[in-house]
Amino acid sequence: MSKQNEHKLLIFALGGVGEIGKNMYVVEYGDDIVIIDAGLKYPEEDMLGIDIVIPDITYLEENKERIRGIVVTHGHEDHIGALPYVLKRIKAPIFATKLTLGLIESKLKEANLLHQVKRVLIHKKSKIKLGCFTLTFFKTNHSIPDSVGVCIDTPEGRVVHTGDFKFDYTPINDEHADIGRMAEIGEQGVLALLSDSTNAERPGYTRSEKEVGRAIVDQFFKAKGRIIVATFASNIHRIQNVFDAALETNRKVAIVGRHVSEVVRIARELGYLYAPDHLLIDIDEMNRLPAHKVCILSAGSQGEPISALTRMAKSSHKQVDIIPGDTVIFAATPIPGNEKLVSRTIDQLFRAGAHVVYGLEGVHVSGHGSQEELKLMLNLMKPKYFIPIHGEYRMLRQHGKLAEATGVPSGNIFLIENGDIVEFHKGKARLGGKVPAGHVLIDGLGVGDVGNIVLRDRKLLSQDGILIVVVTLSKETGSVISGPDIISRGFVYVRESEELMDEAIQLVMTTLEHCQNVQTHDWSTLKTHIRDALSRFLYEQTRRRPMILPIIMEA
Amino acid sequence: MSKQNEHKLLIFALGGVGEIGKNMYVVEYGDDIVIIDAGLKYPEEDMLGIDIVIPDITYLEENKERIRGIVVTHGHEDHIGALPYVLKRIKAPIFATKLTLGLIESKLKEANLLHQVKRVLIHKKSKIKLGCFTLTFFKTNHSIPDSVGVCIDTPEGRVVHTGDFKFDYTPINDEHADIGRMAEIGEQGVLALLSDSTNAERPGYTRSEKEVGRAIVDQFFKAKGRIIVATFASNIHRIQNVFDAALETNRKVAIVGRHVSEVVRIARELGYLYAPDHLLIDIDEMNRLPAHKVCILSAGSQGEPISALTRMAKSSHKQVDIIPGDTVIFAATPIPGNEKLVSRTIDQLFRAGAHVVYGLEGVHVSGHGSQEELKLMLNLMKPKYFIPIHGEYRMLRQHGKLAEATGVPSGNIFLIENGDIVEFHKGKARLGGKVPAGHVLIDGLGVGDVGNIVLRDRKLLSQDGILIVVVTLSKETGSVISGPDIISRGFVYVRESEELMDEAIQLVMTTLEHCQNVQTHDWSTLKTHIRDALSRFLYEQTRRRPMILPIIMEA
Repeated sequence: MSKQNEHKLLIFALGGVGEIGKNMYVVEYGDDIVIIDAGLKYPEEDMLGIDIVIPDITYLEENKERIRGIVVTHGHEDHIGALPYVLKRIKAPIFATKLTLGLIESKLKEANLLHQVKRVLIHKKSKIKLGCFTLTFFKTNHSIPDSVGVCIDTPEGRVVHTGDFKFDYTPINDEHADIGRMAEIGEQGVLALLSDSTNAERPGYTRSEKEVGRAIVDQFFKAKGRIIVATFASNIHRIQNVFDAALETNRKVAIVGRHVSEVVRIARELGYLYAPDHLLIDIDEMNRLPAHKVCILSAGSQGEPISALTRMAKSSHKQVDIIPGDTVIFAATPIPGNEKLVSRTIDQLFRAGAHVVYGLEGVHVSGHGSQEELKLMLNLMKPKYFIPIHGEYRMLRQHGKLAEATGVPSGNIFLIENGDIVEFHKGKARLGGKVPAGHVLIDGLGVGDVGNIVLRDRKLLSQDGILIVVVTLSKETGSVISGPDIISRGFVYVRESEELMDEAIQLVMTTLEHCQNVQTHDWSTLKTHIRDALSRFLYEQTRRRPMILPIIMEA
Repeated sequence: MSKQNEHKLLIFALGGVGEIGKNMYVVEYGDDIVIIDAGLKYPEEDMLGIDIVIPDITYLEENKERIRGIVVTHGHEDHIGALPYVLKRIKAPIFATKLTLGLIESKLKEANLLHQVKRVLIHKKSKIKLGCFTLTFFKTNHSIPDSVGVCIDTPEGRVVHTGDFKFDYTPINDEHADIGRMAEIGEQGVLALLSDSTNAERPGYTRSEKEVGRAIVDQFFKAKGRIIVATFASNIHRIQNVFDAALETNRKVAIVGRHVSEVVRIARELGYLYAPDHLLIDIDEMNRLPAHKVCILSAGSQGEPISALTRMAKSSHKQVDIIPGDTVIFAATPIPGNEKLVSRTIDQLFRAGAHVVYGLEGVHVSGHGSQEELKLMLNLMKPKYFIPIHGEYRMLRQHGKLAEATGVPSGNIFLIENGDIVEFHKGKARLGGKVPAGHVLIDGLGVGDVGNIVLRDRKLLSQDGILIVVVTLSKETGSVISGPDIISRGFVYVRESEELMDEAIQLVMTTLEHCQNVQTHDWSTLKTHIRDALSRFLYEQTRRRPMILPIIMEA
C-alpha cells in the first residue's frame, strides 16, 4: 500500500459479494489489517471437477506483516472453510467465540495446523486491540449458536460487520440477540455498516426456529415407523430440535455421517447441544430397537449424490436401507442449484416406500433475516455509509434499496464487487481502486493449479468427448511408419461407428499424403491440417465437435 | 402382442411418467394402437453434451402396422417435439387442433417430412373412428390456445386423457374450457382417467392468466425507458398479454429470437394472436423510436447461455444492448434446474443498469392446475381407475393421494413407470408386464448413438481430464523406438506441472523396462500395467483420477 493511503480507512471484500459463499472481508488503516472470516464456496456448475473454491489472497500474502488478526463471526463453512488454506500462507491469530473456535480447531487439526496457529477466545464483553483498531462484539441469532457481529473502532470512525443474522425473538436455548448492545453501538454513531444480504429479496420476517421445533415434534408424533431427519450438519439449532423431539416422543437417535457426528460431538462437548447419553445410540443398537423407537439423523439434505441419505434411498448405504413405513423429514431447503438433486432423492425415497416430508411443511426456516429484519438492523445502526455484503448482486441491490428506504442517502450506499476498495477519509467515502480478487479453485491436492484453460478443456471434453489421431512418421523421409490410428472417448459408440472411423482414417491418410507431396517436415502445420480436415468432416457427419488431438511420433 | 392380449385394453406411457417431458402415451386394444402425444425433453445435467431426449419407440416400430394414429393434445415441445424423429420411423396420421397442427407443420417442414405425413384437423365436435376406438375431444385451459383433452371409447370402456390443463375461469380471448362436456363425459362413465400431475404438490388454485395481464400492464405504465419482456416462446397467451399491454401504453413491439418470431407468425396467421400490423416493428425501426415507445419481446426467460436475453445482458447480442433505464420483465419462472442460470442473467441485467422485474410480482402464473383443480377434474370425470401422468414420481404420488381423497379406491390408482402396462379386462385393471421404454439421446445428428458408456466417459473427462501416453515399440524386439510422450487435457496446468510430467514419464519408462525384462509382447497387458502405475502415482500426487489412455504404436 502506498504512503498516501496511510491515513485512510480501507474496506474491501476478497469474497462474499456478488456471490453466496467464500466470505472474506478486510478492514485496513495505515499499518494495520484486520480480516473478517475466511470461507469457502462450493463450485459453480461450470467449474468441472472442482472440489471447493476459496478467495484469492494474493493481497494478504503481499501484506503479511501488517495483518493483525482474523476475526471469525460464526462456524459455518462459508465463513471458516478457507482457514486451513489461508493459514498455510499467512500467519495471524484467530479470534472467535467458543463454539466457532471448537469447529475451527477441528479443521486445523485435520490440516496439521493446530499448534502453529494462535487462537483467542472472545465473548460478549471482549474488547480487543489490534493495532489502531479496537474490536467489540454483539451476539446475533443465526442457524448456529455463538454467532456474533463485529464492531471495529478505527481512527476514521466505527465500522460494523453484522455477520450472518436474523432476529429470532423466541430462539432455541434462550440465546437472545443482543439488541440492546446493537442500539448502543448505533447511538454512539456508525460510519459504515456491512450487513448480510442473503434474504434481501424476501419480504416480511423470517420465522422463529422455535416454530420449526413444534413442526418437527408434530411429525414425530404422526410417524408410525422409523424417522429419518436430513438437515445441514452445521445447523445445530435444528439438530437440537430433532433431539428434543426424540426425547419428547421416546425415540433414540442414531447419527449417520462423519461430518454430522463431528459437529454434534464438538457442540455437545462445548455445551451448545443438549443430549443425554442415553438418547444417542449407534447404528447396530438401532437395528435391535422397534421401528417406532428409532430416529436417524443424517446428512444429505441437499441430495448430494454421495451423501448418506441419497445412498439409503438407492439402497447402496452400508448400514441403513429405507424400508416401507419410514418417514423421511427434509429439515432443510435446497440451496439454489441443488433443487433437482433434492427432487431426485425425494422421488427415490418415495419409490423405496418412505413417507417423505418436504417443502412447505414448516420443518425449515432460514437462518438469515428477511427485509423487515434487515431494516431493523439499519434502524439500530443508523450508519452514515452502507455496504451490503453476503449476497449475489441482485440481493445486494435489493438490500441497498432497503437502506435507502430507511434513510441512507443513495450516494452513501456502495454496491461493490470482490476487490473493490471503499476508501474513507475525513468522514467521506469513495471507491478507491482495486485489489486482486477472484476464485482459487481446489481440485484434489491442487490449490490454484486448475484455471480457465483446464476448465475450458474439461467443458469441451464433457460436450463431445475426444478423438486422438496417432501416427508414427520417419524422421528422415516423413513417410508413415505406423498408423494412423484413431482412438475416441466420449464421442460415439465405437462399435456402431466403424464406417465413420474408417472414413476418418482415410481422410488423415489423404492429408498426410498431400503434406508429404509438398515436403513439409513441419509437424505443427501437419497437425493443424489434420485437425482442420477431421473437424470439418466430423461436424458434417455428426454435427459434433469433439476435441481433436493429433499426435505425431518420430522414428 | 400375443393372442391372449387381443381382447384386453392396454394403457402405457413411453414417456412422461417419473419425469417432466417427452410425453407419449399408448392405448391399445387387439389390432389397434392409438398414440397420444410425442414430446421431447431437455437433457438432465448428467447427460453431458446431449441436445434433446426423446422416448424409446422400439415397441411402436415393432408394431407399426397396428398404429392407427397419433393424437396431439397441444403444441408444446414436450408434446410435439419428438414427432420429426418418430415419423421417420413409423407411419401414422396426426390428429390435432388448428394451432397445434400449425406448429407441428412448421416442425415437419424443417425435417422435410411435411408431404409424407397425413394431418387431420380436429375441432370440438370431431368424432374420429380409429380401428375399434372412437375419439372425441374437450377444450381445456393451458398456457397455449387450442389445447384439448381426449376421450377414447374402447371395447372395454371409456378412457380419458386430460392433456395439460388448468381451470381458468377468466381466460385470455374468452377461450373457456368445456366444463359442460367434461361433466357429460363423466356422467356417462369413465373407466380410466389419465390426468396432468405437474402441480399436484401445490395447494389451492392456479391464478388466471388475466391477472398476469393486469400485472404486466402495471409494469408497462411504470417503466420510463424501454421494456424488454422475456417469456417462453410457446406461451401464446402471455405474448397476447404483452401485445395488449403495448397497445394500451402506446409502445411498438420488436421480436428478438427466431423461435419466438416463428411461433408469433403461425399464431397470428391462424388467428390465435391478435396484433395489428402497426404494432410490430423490426429492430432497425426500434432504434429510431424514443425509449418509452419501445417494447422488445425476447426468448431467454430460462437464462439459457446462448439466448438473446442472456447475450443482451452480457453485451454480446448483435442488435440489442441493455442500457441504463431499461426495464426487463421476466414473465416466466425458472424451470427446476435453471434457477442458477436465471439468477445469473438477472444479476448481469442489474449490473448493466436495468431495472429487473422477477420473482413474485404477479407477472407469471403456471399453465397447470393446482390441487383444487385436479380434484375438480376428478370430480367431473369420476373415474373407476386413475393413472396420474405428466410428472415426476412424487407429483404422481401426490396426485394419487388427491384421487384417493375424492373417492377413487387406493387399489384402483396406478403409479406407473414408463413402460409399465396397465391391463383392463372385463372391467378389472391390473399391472401386466412391460414394454421397452427409456431415453433416446440426441446429440447433433446422432439419434441413440450416445449411450451409457459414452456418457460415462464424458463424465470422467469432465471431472479430471485425460492423460494420453504414447510410445512406439519395435515389432520385433519390443524395445522403445520413440517416446514415451505424455499429453494431457483438462488435468493440470501443464506449464506448472513439468516436474510431475517428467516423473510420470520416468514411471512409464520403468514399467516398460520391467515388462521387457519379462519378455511380454502382450500389448494389452502392458497397457494395463502402465495405466495402473500412472493412476496410482497421479492419485497420490494430486488426488485426481484423470482418464489414462496408453497408446502403443508398433514400428
